[in-house]
Amino acid sequence: MTTIDPKEKRSTSPLIHAFYASPMTGQEIEDRSFEMIDQEAPAHRFMPEEWKVVRRMIHTTGDFTLMDAIRFSPDAIPSAVEALLGGRPIYVDSNMIRSGLSLARLQSVNKDYCRESIVCYVADQGISLQAQEANLPRSLFAVRKAASILDGGIAVFGNSPIALLELNRMIIEKDIRPSFVIAMPVGFVHVVGSKKELMSLGVPYITVVGRRGGSPLAVSVIHALCSLASAQTRYGKDGNHE
Amino acid sequence: MTTIDPKEKRSTSPLIHAFYASPMTGQEIEDRSFEMIDQEAPAHRFMPEEWKVVRRMIHTTGDFTLMDAIRFSPDAIPSAVEALLGGRPIYVDSNMIRSGLSLARLQSVNKDYCRESIVCYVADQGISLQAQEANLPRSLFAVRKAASILDGGIAVFGNSPIALLELNRMIIEKDIRPSFVIAMPVGFVHVVGSKKELMSLGVPYITVVGRRGGSPLAVSVIHALCSLASAQTRYGKDGNHE
Repeated sequence: MTTIDPKEKRSTSPLIHAFYASPMTGQEIEDRSFEMIDQEAPAHRFMPEEWKVVRRMIHTTGDFTLMDAIRFSPDAIPSAVEALLGGRPIYVDSNMIRSGLSLARLQSVNKDYCRESIVCYVADQGISLQAQEANLPRSLFAVRKAASILDGGIAVFGNSPIALLELNRMIIEKDIRPSFVIAMPVGFVHVVGSKKELMSLGVPYITVVGRRGGSPLAVSVIHALCSLASAQTRYGKDGNHE
Repeated sequence: MTTIDPKEKRSTSPLIHAFYASPMTGQEIEDRSFEMIDQEAPAHRFMPEEWKVVRRMIHTTGDFTLMDAIRFSPDAIPSAVEALLGGRPIYVDSNMIRSGLSLARLQSVNKDYCRESIVCYVADQGISLQAQEANLPRSLFAVRKAASILDGGIAVFGNSPIALLELNRMIIEKDIRPSFVIAMPVGFVHVVGSKKELMSLGVPYITVVGRRGGSPLAVSVIHALCSLASAQTRYGKDGNHE
């Protein structure tokens, strides 16, 4: 093996010239990626609509091993599609999720979606003060404040296990019923348990069991569900000639 | 194995009551997570300062297998610390990174950091029009527009391989020299090559080889580097009694 001198290497042509020569749009890159995932994925038991969600999650992380950890409640996809078609508000547990969600995709499902439909309270000043006083995480108080949104709304958790534990409590003790829950907090403390508990509560969910999760995964699930929901709208229009 | 009836399970006490009984702040949860990672991590060859970066990346993803894929150039940590202490501007390739970066952490290193120090052009209307006309991804034109920031600035890529390929070209052909590069685009098309090329250019970098990457990873690296840089400031102050 010979050592490569960085200066020598720098005199070669940049790789992007090959891309300029046969360019692709962002959409074409996404389509090609999905083809590659379809080809490379090991055998699995996901239903066709579930696979569209799983595939986008793999696309977002570059990680096929996630497949073993993704779980859908039996009613997850129809509940999620119905909630999105109905324009239900979306509570998210991090501003990264808020920033990553595409309003255009949401509006392709229901044109009434607007920036204000996506709510996150973790950075509110009032929440911060409550958390400091109580010596507890902000995410806990943020979820409490969102009770009226979460009841009937869409819950998207890609960050805080404490937020999910508090949602679980509100489901059990306050009979708050989200239309569906994306349960993907990530990390080492209370994460595994928060997801297990949520899965036992009879609420429609999509989750990643274990320690993995994260905001981009949560975003990718919503975007995949938007594709499923808007396809259903088109199908409904084509199929309904009343 | 008996089947659990969801209704029966719902009558049990929510897990969060145990957390209420022995509560932790967000910081305490983070500290505990880092302890767990230190305990569970397999043997490795990272230097102590590099390990602080790697550990935060594991914390952000819940995934120890990342350890095999993380690469530092020999000058990565000192270059990054110097750039942050110098308040260099930060170009990011996604608004999720912009939203995830903590201004408080940046200001703990250099108080001149402000929201405007973190720049992202992918959502600019002008960029969008250019991309449509050329039938190329927006991220490419966004990076071109950022040339003056990237020369001497901090480049944080957690999304688009095309953006990284274009940066590589600007380094090779235009002699643009970022003070350091976080090279963590994710996905299936051009991702692996974009990172390999960057690693050959003699610019300080931290990367995840292969297909994995993502905005939260890129954010976690900056936050870890902020801790290293602000510790150095304090050490410098304590050690210097002139």
